[in-house]
Amino acid sequence: MSDEIVIGVDLGGTHVRAGAFTSGGEMLAVKETPIEAARGPETGLLRIQHLIEVVWKESGAQALLGIGVGSTGPTDPIRGVINNPFTLPGWENVPIIARLRNAFDVPVTLENDADVAALGEYWRGAGQSIRRLYAVTVGTGVGTALILDGQIYRGMDGLHPEGGHVILDPSGPPCYCGAHGCWESLCAAPAIARQARQTDLSNSILLGMAGGDLEKIDARLVAEAARLGDPSACAIMDKVAFYFSLGIINVIHSITPEMIVLSGGVMKSADLFLPHLNKAIAAHSVMIPSNQVRIAPAQLGNYAGLYGAAYTIWSTLK
Amino acid sequence: MSDEIVIGVDLGGTHVRAGAFTSGGEMLAVKETPIEAARGPETGLLRIQHLIEVVWKESGAQALLGIGVGSTGPTDPIRGVINNPFTLPGWENVPIIARLRNAFDVPVTLENDADVAALGEYWRGAGQSIRRLYAVTVGTGVGTALILDGQIYRGMDGLHPEGGHVILDPSGPPCYCGAHGCWESLCAAPAIARQARQTDLSNSILLGMAGGDLEKIDARLVAEAARLGDPSACAIMDKVAFYFSLGIINVIHSITPEMIVLSGGVMKSADLFLPHLNKAIAAHSVMIPSNQVRIAPAQLGNYAGLYGAAYTIWSTLK
Repeated sequence: MSDEIVIGVDLGGTHVRAGAFTSGGEMLAVKETPIEAARGPETGLLRIQHLIEVVWKESGAQALLGIGVGSTGPTDPIRGVINNPFTLPGWENVPIIARLRNAFDVPVTLENDADVAALGEYWRGAGQSIRRLYAVTVGTGVGTALILDGQIYRGMDGLHPEGGHVILDPSGPPCYCGAHGCWESLCAAPAIARQARQTDLSNSILLGMAGGDLEKIDARLVAEAARLGDPSACAIMDKVAFYFSLGIINVIHSITPEMIVLSGGVMKSADLFLPHLNKAIAAHSVMIPSNQVRIAPAQLGNYAGLYGAAYTIWSTLK
Repeated sequence: MSDEIVIGVDLGGTHVRAGAFTSGGEMLAVKETPIEAARGPETGLLRIQHLIEVVWKESGAQALLGIGVGSTGPTDPIRGVINNPFTLPGWENVPIIARLRNAFDVPVTLENDADVAALGEYWRGAGQSIRRLYAVTVGTGVGTALILDGQIYRGMDGLHPEGGHVILDPSGPPCYCGAHGCWESLCAAPAIARQARQTDLSNSILLGMAGGDLEKIDARLVAEAARLGDPSACAIMDKVAFYFSLGIINVIHSITPEMIVLSGGVMKSADLFLPHLNKAIAAHSVMIPSNQVRIAPAQLGNYAGLYGAAYTIWSTLK
């Protein structure tokens, strides 16, 4: 038990999670609940408030020193506002910082979810004491974050850069970002599924695995079929691994971090990616000793964002 | 006249230049001399030493407070050593910092030439008081630099990132960096000349402009022919502008600087690039408001490196 805690909140498109942390990074309690964003921000904010109260109580700590929120973007960390009608329908200009500050009378921070997840890995995960830490999350999209000396790197006007939309091949598929062949359009889970659906699967086990329903083919299934040696699935995963490696090579040449931490659902197929990546790194070590950049799996899994959100408060109190 | 100066040195593959600067950034004297690198580092170091003495004297200042050196890479800023047998033949492990410190008994710094040129633009050029300033030099190669809050951004082990070797199209030409289709292989001056030589020029004015000698076609000539409306040259410059724009779009998405400063020989053809770039920026403003990133020509021309090298000293003395 600890006298003082801060609470990290991780707000996603379907669930919100909260964890209570000591200054040393011990998680004393953690809980999650559906956010049901479509019911509107008012309902959502009350749920978050209640969740914080429950987790605080469960931690047994007397004093709550602050609340850090990591949210599915776009967020405005400076104004303290969530503005995300894309994955939180109806959540436009939601002043979450002001609301939680009024409710609990403590400092509150708001950050992008990719940034807090990377910060969590810096604080208590794979990237501890790494001066320049880059993080790549491959799931529904490709999210990136850069942590410099334990601080979130921000771009113009405090914006979160969108490294997942760096263009890798202009002859690639179109993306909602306006580009053709950006990292996300080539490597995220929907891109893997789309490639499978566009492939002639007459000699593949994939369609059978999906119960004959083309729409049921997803990235996980393609990876599974590839592991069973299915040639169509292998060809798709090889192509994805090729582009994934280009994305990493580009990070190494443009940012040159000491470590790149990999996470997200697609990274569960890391075994299918890493051989390609290692080969690509060896082939692109002329200008930069790319092989000295450490490539590491994330260690905190679904809790990385909670750790990082809590750290945004602890790092200001220290 | 000023009592105190620092001297900035810009060491290139053919010439070395030195300038004397006041703390306010006024250049009181400047001189250059051939480096004749092939005569060996000993001769070169003596020339640099002499050049510094001449410029100091010409500035009329009593006190020399420090010497900043910007050198064609690879350099090792931390060990203070130039290690560049590529463009300075024979210059391996040349301890320029120790040498100049012993000769003048003042602090000496050593930095990559792309970094000091960007720093010069930050101090007294196009990028004054820009918090996140990115610089791109397109000439024999594509050089990049990132200045964060007036400090050179460094990667792993103090390395200078090589943003010019970011891959833009894996079906592009091979580069000595190990990649296919990196920025430099698609947009630097030799790439432009190479594309012209590989084009069917039977209906082009280019061969005539080069006196019938294919080998005499260079980037400047291609740009000139394009300005005269030659279809082959226009097609080449359009392609180069397309890829150049991709490179800029990638900088915006991965780094999101407030400003990108453009310089180098190829940028003398900026009129042929900018219409494409503006169109590309407009088309890639979904994730990041790319159109708010300022694209600016460098202002200090050949002296940018001198200014920046001097600033590396002044900024530590302030």
